[in-house]
Amino acid sequence: MIPDVHTPENRKALFLRACRSEPVERVPVWIMRQAGRYLPEYRALRQKHAFLEVCKTPELAAEVSLQPFHIVGVDAVIVFSDILIPIEAMGMGLELTDSGPALADPVRDSAHVAALRDFDPEQETGFVAEAIRQLSRAVGPDVPVIGFAGAPWTLACYLVEGRARDAFPTAKRMMFQEPALFRTLLEKLARTTARYLKAQIAAGATAVQLFDTWAGELSERDYEAFALPTTQRLIAELDPGGVPVILYTKASGHLLREVAQAGADVLSVDWRVDLAEARQRLGNRVALQGNVDPCVLLGPEEGIRQAAREAIEKTGGLGHILNLGHGILPSTPVEAARAFVRAGKTTSLPARVPLGQAG
Amino acid sequence: MIPDVHTPENRKALFLRACRSEPVERVPVWIMRQAGRYLPEYRALRQKHAFLEVCKTPELAAEVSLQPFHIVGVDAVIVFSDILIPIEAMGMGLELTDSGPALADPVRDSAHVAALRDFDPEQETGFVAEAIRQLSRAVGPDVPVIGFAGAPWTLACYLVEGRARDAFPTAKRMMFQEPALFRTLLEKLARTTARYLKAQIAAGATAVQLFDTWAGELSERDYEAFALPTTQRLIAELDPGGVPVILYTKASGHLLREVAQAGADVLSVDWRVDLAEARQRLGNRVALQGNVDPCVLLGPEEGIRQAAREAIEKTGGLGHILNLGHGILPSTPVEAARAFVRAGKTTSLPARVPLGQAG
Repeated sequence: MIPDVHTPENRKALFLRACRSEPVERVPVWIMRQAGRYLPEYRALRQKHAFLEVCKTPELAAEVSLQPFHIVGVDAVIVFSDILIPIEAMGMGLELTDSGPALADPVRDSAHVAALRDFDPEQETGFVAEAIRQLSRAVGPDVPVIGFAGAPWTLACYLVEGRARDAFPTAKRMMFQEPALFRTLLEKLARTTARYLKAQIAAGATAVQLFDTWAGELSERDYEAFALPTTQRLIAELDPGGVPVILYTKASGHLLREVAQAGADVLSVDWRVDLAEARQRLGNRVALQGNVDPCVLLGPEEGIRQAAREAIEKTGGLGHILNLGHGILPSTPVEAARAFVRAGKTTSLPARVPLGQAG
Repeated sequence: MIPDVHTPENRKALFLRACRSEPVERVPVWIMRQAGRYLPEYRALRQKHAFLEVCKTPELAAEVSLQPFHIVGVDAVIVFSDILIPIEAMGMGLELTDSGPALADPVRDSAHVAALRDFDPEQETGFVAEAIRQLSRAVGPDVPVIGFAGAPWTLACYLVEGRARDAFPTAKRMMFQEPALFRTLLEKLARTTARYLKAQIAAGATAVQLFDTWAGELSERDYEAFALPTTQRLIAELDPGGVPVILYTKASGHLLREVAQAGADVLSVDWRVDLAEARQRLGNRVALQGNVDPCVLLGPEEGIRQAAREAIEKTGGLGHILNLGHGILPSTPVEAARAFVRAGKTTSLPARVPLGQAG
């Protein structure tokens, strides 16, 4: 039943078929934040290089991005970067630490929104595209390379709040108090993000993931009024016929109907969304990514295997990219990450998926 | 259509009818964390007295509890306290600051779980019951006084993690790694919390609210396996024929079916749960409390009125206690809290609620 899952020549095709909800021999698997602090090799490199230095040095970014490919065995590499990189290019003073981002001078008024620069991604964040080019060369034509960016609402949360903060009250105050100004900010972020992602696609990204991590903070009504329209415009600008777009939202079960209208090929959801229910509600028109609780990887291996299997059983393995529901935790044992990936690769798909037709 | 909403003699009856989903002339309204940092009068008192000192001095706790009743005009008072007060009585070293709780020596093994003391609430947290008695005398027999406690899962999050932390990975690690030990901890917390709430009821609480703030961190499966059974036992112990039990959960739309099985009379939900959808799914067997986004109170008054009206329209005002979806933010203008309460008190109920039969 299980083909040679380690054959490298089928990983990009496998990933693309999963994104397009086409039959597959097994689900592809990768892990959000797979390059990062739980890996000793990453921590060793970070002893010598600061976080932003790694992001901005293509050789280092590529090296770090490749670590989980070689050590953990994931099916896709994602370029090592941060969703706030373009924010800095827009003129914001940015400090990124392992404990989170901090903006020295948050956006609070229309003058500041107007002052945000429409930067040229080729010129000012060229290191991201260059890291993708180096990564693509390193893994060869048969392994998917994922690019990414923050979605407008999530970026606006950081821009206005200045840091991650429970409920983002300052960002929401602007949204409720000055809705027109907040929309202008979202539109500007959507435009720059579209260009930023196009540069990553031009550099060879197989797919791009849009992180709307804080979408779940919004009510259905406010998501529909503010976040959804700008996300839709952004995705539409990326050329729908081109590379698959994965839209990640956290704790967004209450928004599933709306998130599904954003135009993404794949919805990446967390453990609060039941994959079987999501599939039932959304049908086969959108693939799903996720959704194991990262904390499961702190538990015993049998629990990890079971969680991966259950996720795959809920989708039948069709139109499903196995992943966690949020980034892997720094305290995760490397062996647990390996067990998760192995479980994804070796779980037999239910008979109703026509294996014979797959790749 | 609107009776004299400020007539004090009907508030307790109104509140109890709402808890029991009986017809009302208008919805009752109060605000989570209504006694607190957004009130200048509270901040003035806190200049002289530390947080825990206020909690443990019945006169001060009662004074602070009454402030929003007089200043903002809420329909119910809730005793000023903290969900971690009983944790201290169980033997945990506790530091409570305005920025959150911190436990010096978190619970990490079976010896520590066994060492947690089954305290006597009359003896060791008698100040809470005494504050409720003083409050009840101060407001008279016609105003509801709400007691409260943390639910076992949420208390366990703090006990094991040591502080509020995104995703509570240490608590979840124990849950996944040592499920039997974690259940023992939950059971112990359920037993002590039941006794703690019974003491508050004996002191005169009209209703009690159980805060399961972090329930939304759990998947449906894990909520059902760990949090739900202990919450059910706790509520069952409180004497179902007695005072109404309100169960608060944050970001729990994905758990609504399970939360509704806990045995509470009222489910308090946040802005991520659509009240109309919740009513449709749960029917009239459980009342609803909530659910306006606290950030709405940072916006213009018209938006506040509209949000309150919309919440009431979604329930038809039947079996509905108007509240926020989470605690009021410290940066909220007092006038915004007043506008919210006023909106609740003056919103006409839809004609289908038989006004003539009410109060």
